[in-house]
Amino acid sequence: MDPLIIAGVEFRSRLLLGTGGVPSLEVLDRSIAAAGAELVTVALRRVEAAAGGPLLDVLDRAKVRLLPNTAGCATAREAVLTARLAREAFDTSWVKLEVIGDEHTLLPDPVELLDAAEQLVADGFTVLPYTSDDPITARRLADLGCAAVMPLGSPIGSGLGIRNPHNIALIRESVTVPVVLDAGIGTASDAALAMELGCDAVLLASAVTRARDPELMATAMRDAVRAGRLAYRAGRIPRRWHARASTQPDGLPEL
Amino acid sequence: MDPLIIAGVEFRSRLLLGTGGVPSLEVLDRSIAAAGAELVTVALRRVEAAAGGPLLDVLDRAKVRLLPNTAGCATAREAVLTARLAREAFDTSWVKLEVIGDEHTLLPDPVELLDAAEQLVADGFTVLPYTSDDPITARRLADLGCAAVMPLGSPIGSGLGIRNPHNIALIRESVTVPVVLDAGIGTASDAALAMELGCDAVLLASAVTRARDPELMATAMRDAVRAGRLAYRAGRIPRRWHARASTQPDGLPEL
Amino acid sequence: MDPLIIAGVEFRSRLLLGTGGVPSLEVLDRSIAAAGAELVTVALRRVEAAAGGPLLDVLDRAKVRLLPNTAGCATAREAVLTARLAREAFDTSWVKLEVIGDEHTLLPDPVELLDAAEQLVADGFTVLPYTSDDPITARRLADLGCAAVMPLGSPIGSGLGIRNPHNIALIRESVTVPVVLDAGIGTASDAALAMELGCDAVLLASAVTRARDPELMATAMRDAVRAGRLAYRAGRIPRRWHARASTQPDGLPEL
Amino acid sequence: MDPLIIAGVEFRSRLLLGTGGVPSLEVLDRSIAAAGAELVTVALRRVEAAAGGPLLDVLDRAKVRLLPNTAGCATAREAVLTARLAREAFDTSWVKLEVIGDEHTLLPDPVELLDAAEQLVADGFTVLPYTSDDPITARRLADLGCAAVMPLGSPIGSGLGIRNPHNIALIRESVTVPVVLDAGIGTASDAALAMELGCDAVLLASAVTRARDPELMATAMRDAVRAGRLAYRAGRIPRRWHARASTQPDGLPEL
Repeated sequence: MDPLIIAGVEFRSRLLLGTGGVPSLEVLDRSIAAAGAELVTVALRRVEAAAGGPLLDVLDRAKVRLLPNTAGCATAREAVLTARLAREAFDTSWVKLEVIGDEHTLLPDPVELLDAAEQLVADGFTVLPYTSDDPITARRLADLGCAAVMPLGSPIGSGLGIRNPHNIALIRESVTVPVVLDAGIGTASDAALAMELGCDAVLLASAVTRARDPELMATAMRDAVRAGRLAYRAGRIPRRWHARASTQPDGLPEL
Repeated sequence: MDPLIIAGVEFRSRLLLGTGGVPSLEVLDRSIAAAGAELVTVALRRVEAAAGGPLLDVLDRAKVRLLPNTAGCATAREAVLTARLAREAFDTSWVKLEVIGDEHTLLPDPVELLDAAEQLVADGFTVLPYTSDDPITARRLADLGCAAVMPLGSPIGSGLGIRNPHNIALIRESVTVPVVLDAGIGTASDAALAMELGCDAVLLASAVTRARDPELMATAMRDAVRAGRLAYRAGRIPRRWHARASTQPDGLPEL
Repeated sequence: MDPLIIAGVEFRSRLLLGTGGVPSLEVLDRSIAAAGAELVTVALRRVEAAAGGPLLDVLDRAKVRLLPNTAGCATAREAVLTARLAREAFDTSWVKLEVIGDEHTLLPDPVELLDAAEQLVADGFTVLPYTSDDPITARRLADLGCAAVMPLGSPIGSGLGIRNPHNIALIRESVTVPVVLDAGIGTASDAALAMELGCDAVLLASAVTRARDPELMATAMRDAVRAGRLAYRAGRIPRRWHARASTQPDGLPEL
Repeated sequence: MDPLIIAGVEFRSRLLLGTGGVPSLEVLDRSIAAAGAELVTVALRRVEAAAGGPLLDVLDRAKVRLLPNTAGCATAREAVLTARLAREAFDTSWVKLEVIGDEHTLLPDPVELLDAAEQLVADGFTVLPYTSDDPITARRLADLGCAAVMPLGSPIGSGLGIRNPHNIALIRESVTVPVVLDAGIGTASDAALAMELGCDAVLLASAVTRARDPELMATAMRDAVRAGRLAYRAGRIPRRWHARASTQPDGLPEL
């Protein structure tokens, strides 16, 4: 598979993994390996971050790059502060920017998100914002200097897949930075579809961590992301209203 | 991946390949290898079959099992005759039974299909019928002794994917023989979805042979079938109307 | 609205109503009036039919034409017998032919259905068969001399709407008799869609009789069927990937 | 049908009409009558507005309330200026606020939109903003004091219908002001679906004005909006995986 490049850093894997909801660190360890993930999000928890802690040990051994997120933040101010704490704690200027507008849907708030993105870019962060599937907001984020845009397929943890493939395709048309489908993936075909729509990568957590067998699902997602990417590059057949015989009638035996 | 067993024969691959529409034998050769296919359909063409011919040479070298089809037949009589000719020509009693009811849609005719299936089962064939996605017809085919049922996703070569996932799932509920999604697959996510619905395998031709890059698409399909199967076994998360935070609020920093 | 003609009989309404599941005869009375239905199905129940009975009184006062059905029949033999009993009991040679292949899905059995249709047509019945959405079976039924074909949208009472609009459109292309969407309608937009796909009428029962307010839903369905028919005739705009301004930029004020 | 109330003004019709794309004033005249529309959008064109002009004559005779829009504006500044000009020209403080973020998709820009909405509300306007289907942006607009929110189904003039019904339903849950589905409607079933999702009204232009027969389509849309509203209030049946017989087996004849 062709490499994914975000902010000049090259990844062989196009599957990013979140750690939320994982039943145990051992499962996480095996899921990361099965997924082949090289970029893994972590929520800042002060104690863990300061003390290292077992989660970080697992991620360290897995040799993945950390992508701290600002989960739970509802304002630009909170998100910016969280990002700065995370930068110190995890020693990385990369951040998954998440500014939530509603407790029930956990949908991102475009106003606070754009505000925070602008501040963090100005502060030297490599910003990967979690955003709605609105193409205009995505383009604004890209214009502000974000390193990628990460539109949702559907609400976090909903497993509803990609509710509006048209918008994801429009986002792909309108920005030049990588597009990472983030949130809503429920199963493997959702991840494949994301890639077929032109996404450069997929970020998911619950779909793996809360599956009945997380490790097996991590393998499925690895294969699905790869399948979707290859299909995108291979050039699918057009959709046709009627049939087209794969076997031409010429040469068939006469009976 | 767990093996697929049809009529007591074990296959490691769950992707069956058709040869129709392939631009060259060399492309076919590479596509079969990329797909990892072990069971490949061929249309009986009298000369080729009798003489061997280059297509058969390719399939022979690829060490795949041949699955002759009765493409182009419109009546049970024609299909039964074709199956018998194919049995002699290809030296196999396996047959993909195809009885077409309409030139524009190439949809199977249930009446002629059931008639032909009954005759061929009685004649000792291992019958894999291409059928509509109607669960009742599928169950009747299984009850007649077919070794598998192969419902369509959408018309042959249409690339419209699985038009009625509900019916495919109902078929899976109602028969115990393997269910092979046959026809309509356009891209990788379609194949993954088929497997997630509980299909045991996927059969496709045009999606690979007419793709811009057949070999690459064959690889994509191999990965997609595997991804869908693993996801099916891994137990996906339920769909939820609202969000579910992957990161729980406890332990987040206070700002 | 242009009239619907079945077997030479003209109807102003394109909404056919089933009586199953209705909470009371009073509700049925008001629902028929609200729906404006002129053709109403009834299941043969020997006593009622022989004795007249309150259901028939209601239908008689509503001045609707009765369409006896063969609900509950699982074989051609049963269905033919039921149709003949109904012909005597209700004094009509019209019959909604229903031959069920499965208790869980109540899906029609194509083999028994075609057999029964052939016998009943030969016996002088005006046959309206409830069938799957398979275009080949529908065409066979039309070729046998059925007065209309009545494909399902989804299983009876499921409220899942039209699972495969593509098949309904293909049926419309392939037969010249009226196409009546029968079964699966859940709400008004489903009925409108059926008409937009080219169906000539819609038959529904549960969607009205089991709604919270059956009379109100009957009104909704009447309007929806009308809306869908008019939209079909009015010629909808094409679907476009990008936007098309309804207001052209020329003449806008310069600011 | 229950009345629609926006900013204290009561309407009997829940179908709002745009005038863009109409082939002639005569067609507009007849379409407004057929639609039963009481609220009609107009784009400010300086000359027309100042001079009255034939369009305004038609709307005046139709006794509809005018809803000037800010079509073609790309910034809050432009939109606010346009709204003020329109207020003088048309003698109404109602405005459909439209601030476009992209020429290809004509999607609204949330940042400029919120900015303009805030200014116009402060200036005493009754603001009806055209917005994306993002629930957070919609709630922010409501919180700013907009009299309604008008989320899109899909891009203006695309005829793609409601791409993300889930978001529309989430918007309905999250605001108390009327929700008007604006943009993307292609045919009658789209309009019915909007109402079934809980929208209070539908605004459309191209679907009628560019239909092959605008007047007929206007009638269809009137019926569809009414059908969807009634169905919403009537309480649809739940969706079920399997069938539910409308005719119970008890009392069927034994054969």
